[in-house]
Amino acid sequence: MVIIERIGGVTMQKLEFLKSTENRFDMLNNEVVCALDKINDSLMWGAMQYFKDTSYTWIEVPIMTKVTGACENVNTLYSVNHFGKEAYLAQTGQLYLEAKIPKHSKVWTTIISSRAEQKVDSRHLNQFSLVEFEQQGDFEKLLPTIEAIVQAMVANVLKENKKELEFLGRDINELEKYLKPFNRVTYTEAIKLLQANDFEIYWGDDLSHQAEMKILELHNNLPTFVTHFPAKIKFFNMRLNRDNKDIVNSADLLMPYSGESAGSAEREDDYEILVDRLKESNMYKILAERGVTLETFKDYLDLIKKNPILHAGAGIGFNRITQSILGLSDIRQTNNYPLNAETLY
Amino acid sequence: MVIIERIGGVTMQKLEFLKSTENRFDMLNNEVVCALDKINDSLMWGAMQYFKDTSYTWIEVPIMTKVTGACENVNTLYSVNHFGKEAYLAQTGQLYLEAKIPKHSKVWTTIISSRAEQKVDSRHLNQFSLVEFEQQGDFEKLLPTIEAIVQAMVANVLKENKKELEFLGRDINELEKYLKPFNRVTYTEAIKLLQANDFEIYWGDDLSHQAEMKILELHNNLPTFVTHFPAKIKFFNMRLNRDNKDIVNSADLLMPYSGESAGSAEREDDYEILVDRLKESNMYKILAERGVTLETFKDYLDLIKKNPILHAGAGIGFNRITQSILGLSDIRQTNNYPLNAETLY
Repeated sequence: MVIIERIGGVTMQKLEFLKSTENRFDMLNNEVVCALDKINDSLMWGAMQYFKDTSYTWIEVPIMTKVTGACENVNTLYSVNHFGKEAYLAQTGQLYLEAKIPKHSKVWTTIISSRAEQKVDSRHLNQFSLVEFEQQGDFEKLLPTIEAIVQAMVANVLKENKKELEFLGRDINELEKYLKPFNRVTYTEAIKLLQANDFEIYWGDDLSHQAEMKILELHNNLPTFVTHFPAKIKFFNMRLNRDNKDIVNSADLLMPYSGESAGSAEREDDYEILVDRLKESNMYKILAERGVTLETFKDYLDLIKKNPILHAGAGIGFNRITQSILGLSDIRQTNNYPLNAETLY
Repeated sequence: MVIIERIGGVTMQKLEFLKSTENRFDMLNNEVVCALDKINDSLMWGAMQYFKDTSYTWIEVPIMTKVTGACENVNTLYSVNHFGKEAYLAQTGQLYLEAKIPKHSKVWTTIISSRAEQKVDSRHLNQFSLVEFEQQGDFEKLLPTIEAIVQAMVANVLKENKKELEFLGRDINELEKYLKPFNRVTYTEAIKLLQANDFEIYWGDDLSHQAEMKILELHNNLPTFVTHFPAKIKFFNMRLNRDNKDIVNSADLLMPYSGESAGSAEREDDYEILVDRLKESNMYKILAERGVTLETFKDYLDLIKKNPILHAGAGIGFNRITQSILGLSDIRQTNNYPLNAETLY
């Protein structure tokens, strides 16, 4: 991690005080925070303008849902009593966007994703902006879209915020490298690479943050897609690779400094496979213990049954992009009101 | 209401089935709903483009907050257990936007506002998109801004969605009238007008939906600002009128079909008045019974104490605008996943 600390040194110093979440209201009108606001504004506009210019339709999705709103981790759901019904703060709007795919070829939304993370650390926020899209088409169309969105975000900052980047001490040349084609490595290759570099990891393991940072280091510390994860460790509706059913057509985007910054996949369009995968998933096993049945997923399953259209989508963690753009070591430095288990504003 | 039913007749017929929230997933890919999506997309873009073109800075605000996140009604808060702390789903991001005003002259955001309304009716959703802004400056700068935003939304629909409007049967000439300067009437004048039209209402009463519709009828059924409400019935930080301390410099925007569609006001910049108003407010009395003290509002109060800058802002209820644009009688017809006490997706 020596390289990272050197590059990010100056920036980190100016934004250092934002690692603390105490007395946040006293910090909000600091010039450094205002420069950060301008950069976040440009990042969000970069993404949104991409969706507009390429004719994605904006769809409002619910942020309080049935358990189907969790596409990440059912163990980190915030629950809400919704007039006698058990509701949860959505972790993603994915399924609700997917539901619109039969008629709209491309849709997008931005939600505040909620994750009830008990552990307070420099990598996780309990609520954060998630930029999401779904589109008709396959994996080979998906990855260039994610790359184009992230590069539109970066390019907009480079266009609008040279002054702020200089003020914060961020190396602009470094950032311009994010505009080159992103690296791409399969999960299987990545595991081999890690093993060849004395990293203790086995096929089937999830990637730890350390593993992600090592993969980045082995790819010139530039944005890198890790593709085709083991099916067993990924969400049930990620589409099985038809040549190798141990893996799914998924991709995580690793960004310098922040690591995993986007999750994406083709969605399973074969109803029978989808139901089997749901039933076999760890998520479903956990939910079954709580009394959840297939009926809870009926709306989604029926939709795929009736409209088996190949589609794919992604969720881009906005703050992870900010972190990467500014070379920050702590996610709490990325916005005004960072929420974790210790904070509330 | 005869006029309204006649104008909206055709539109209402095509979107009639959306009054029901049962089997929503079966309706999502209906052509009528897709036309609605396109119109919502254009409405949201109209507002966002206005903010961009006029250099407002986008700020991410929290959607789970202390009780200070309720600027509407503390009796309709959804509560969430946030690791031992009592949190609430935000009704607005207003105070969190205001906190940025000392350094940024103009800020905006869009949040999903949450209101735990037990009563299911055609006028209220329990979650909906709220387009919000705060800006330095007074009331006379505020109203033209709201008008400009709403008109940017309407104009964008007229530009992008002639086809969809025709398909849905909406009278375009009717809609073009929304681009004329909005009507303006003070609350006091409005009460007199209502009384002169045999409406039983007294100065100091809040405006019922029926009263709002009558005011609209008396103003050619076109967008109408009702200004300067009694201080007693409005949020504690709405700025007291310096010539008449019984009223505040506030404005509600009434839109045809939907009634109140935006709330706005100058914000109190005199610390002493602000604290007094908070203490005297009904909201505070309710909260005090639950053990809430001034300390809960300390961050906000301190901010105004340290930065007494005259500013004003508004929250525009997105779905109420959709309802008005399409001439709908039921708010459940305005989006894909309308949440009320009976629904959950």
